[in-house]
Amino acid sequence: MKENRYSSDYLHSFVCDVFTKLGCSAADAGAVADVLIAAELRDHSSHGMIRVKEYYELWKSGRVNAKPDVKIVHETPSTGVVDGDRCFGMVAGMKSMQLAIEKATATGTGWVAARNSNHFGIAGYYAMMALKHDMVGICLTNANPLVAPTWSVSRYLGTNPVAVAVPALNEPPFVADFATTPIARGKLAVAEKKGEKVPFGFVQDANGVPSDDPGILKQGGSMLTLGGDRVHGSHKGYCMTAIVDIFCSVFGGANFGPFVPPSVAYLPVLETKTGEGTGHFFGAMRIDAFRPASEFKEKMDEWIKTFRGAKPAKDQESVLIPGDPERAAEKRYREEGLKLVPAVVEDLKVIAAELKLNFQER
Amino acid sequence: MKENRYSSDYLHSFVCDVFTKLGCSAADAGAVADVLIAAELRDHSSHGMIRVKEYYELWKSGRVNAKPDVKIVHETPSTGVVDGDRCFGMVAGMKSMQLAIEKATATGTGWVAARNSNHFGIAGYYAMMALKHDMVGICLTNANPLVAPTWSVSRYLGTNPVAVAVPALNEPPFVADFATTPIARGKLAVAEKKGEKVPFGFVQDANGVPSDDPGILKQGGSMLTLGGDRVHGSHKGYCMTAIVDIFCSVFGGANFGPFVPPSVAYLPVLETKTGEGTGHFFGAMRIDAFRPASEFKEKMDEWIKTFRGAKPAKDQESVLIPGDPERAAEKRYREEGLKLVPAVVEDLKVIAAELKLNFQER
Repeated sequence: MKENRYSSDYLHSFVCDVFTKLGCSAADAGAVADVLIAAELRDHSSHGMIRVKEYYELWKSGRVNAKPDVKIVHETPSTGVVDGDRCFGMVAGMKSMQLAIEKATATGTGWVAARNSNHFGIAGYYAMMALKHDMVGICLTNANPLVAPTWSVSRYLGTNPVAVAVPALNEPPFVADFATTPIARGKLAVAEKKGEKVPFGFVQDANGVPSDDPGILKQGGSMLTLGGDRVHGSHKGYCMTAIVDIFCSVFGGANFGPFVPPSVAYLPVLETKTGEGTGHFFGAMRIDAFRPASEFKEKMDEWIKTFRGAKPAKDQESVLIPGDPERAAEKRYREEGLKLVPAVVEDLKVIAAELKLNFQER
Repeated sequence: MKENRYSSDYLHSFVCDVFTKLGCSAADAGAVADVLIAAELRDHSSHGMIRVKEYYELWKSGRVNAKPDVKIVHETPSTGVVDGDRCFGMVAGMKSMQLAIEKATATGTGWVAARNSNHFGIAGYYAMMALKHDMVGICLTNANPLVAPTWSVSRYLGTNPVAVAVPALNEPPFVADFATTPIARGKLAVAEKKGEKVPFGFVQDANGVPSDDPGILKQGGSMLTLGGDRVHGSHKGYCMTAIVDIFCSVFGGANFGPFVPPSVAYLPVLETKTGEGTGHFFGAMRIDAFRPASEFKEKMDEWIKTFRGAKPAKDQESVLIPGDPERAAEKRYREEGLKLVPAVVEDLKVIAAELKLNFQER
């Protein structure tokens, strides 16, 4: 391991200690730690250790229940609805995806909507839970509203990600995990801190005029959907984001669109509710419910090899299979250790002091 | 009805006559007619009467089987695989979606992959079949390859559409039906015929250099995924298009990506196969498998009304709910009749003469 790095085990253990101190069971604290550390290893640090403070602040403000009674409130042979009882999102996430996998084992596929949850980290984590069962995994979540539908200036949708994981045989799995907006909000914040402009197509001002100012959200601006503008297909991005929102809210009874609660404590609780908390949606599909698993996985190998062999554009890198960059990052970080930015280290030291724990500075 | 227009009934009846002459059963000819006429009424004429000639030419070239034995080749309580026996795509489409609906009735959800099929018209038609059963309908298809993955110049993906239909109570349903590329290929052809350029972000040349030439596909160019370029999220569009391709090919055993057969007879049959024919994927989800149907539909009404109330951008029309423009078109065309462009009328007259039928010029 390189100097000044953290092992993933050390960070995992620290996160477990923090959330146990907040009152979580060992299993629930472990779920939070599993997903946050997976995000760090997969180079999605925007969904990693930086969230410990946000979750801690949400808990301090009374918006998250560390001792939830997470329950299955409705089910059929292939479906279920889980109420998260205001849990840390990972707790509802794990239980819901496990239920989807059980349903798929029994009937071929399983589909579970979760309500009354909170931010649950990277959607890809839950989709990938299906892989070891020879299942395709699907995971969606809605999120606090920052994105305007095409032709509007109202922040009515989240950056609502889609994750799909598909098992292969000798090739690594196909793992797509992407926000349904051109960029994640975290990238706007980074550009703003650096005093940089962003390309047109990411944000608009309060009147709907295209903008290159990454700080425009603070002045009533909004993020745009994938496609950017109507000419370039933003209405298709709007459809995608809207579908994710509907699946995550209307099926299970969570808040939809503009009413999804903020995932940070410094934003006020909304006055109007259209459901309970944040919502997620999970799917598991047994591949042998369609054809012999070995056939399916051989064909996925062929798919992956074919696409890896696509001709690169001039001066471009070779074509990537969704999941490749994250896998490469995980390999590197497991060898070299994880870096944390100083601001995150400071936050973790403060939390550790408040909870009478120790966080080592590296 | 306005002058020089066709009633949808007249066109439907003509299409039935054509496909019956080719050897289709009345039910199969009716399926083809239902979907083509629905496309005309919904203002997607690129998927309407213009396809009669393409399908006829495919049949003449022996690539479509007018008397197919469409069979369920595998099933579980919530899944199935349908082999289309080289049918006109609508025949496999109808049977597969009906099977998905039956499975959903029994177990909550139904998921069916179809292989050995052909072009099946608008994906939205099949998704909407679920609505009257109080189900959410989903339909995907792969298509002949024209689209390059991010960072590549290889035409390895189709414009692979996604359709999702969600029932509401007093509001009309939410019906999204969109290609996972910024534009449909038909629009490139129209711009080329008019001698117009297209905006950057739609196509690239054979080296991967951005182009505004709508005819570039004939010179080795390719279409881009939703997002346009990497900076604006084209890798997310690539993920979407790839997911649709995998669901439509690997689950059921159809050809994937570069190997999907052309939907027009003037393009040669590919030498390599990775499966059978074109593939589709269908889903049906009983809304009362998640919560009482009335609750679900009331909440969808609330979702739709909320989004209709979003504040329009300056000088913009009001926000649309997916399905609104198609519904408005259908209402208008049912009153005023359907217009056909002269070239399509000419094609239909030629086909009518060859088949000893009559097609009235209006």
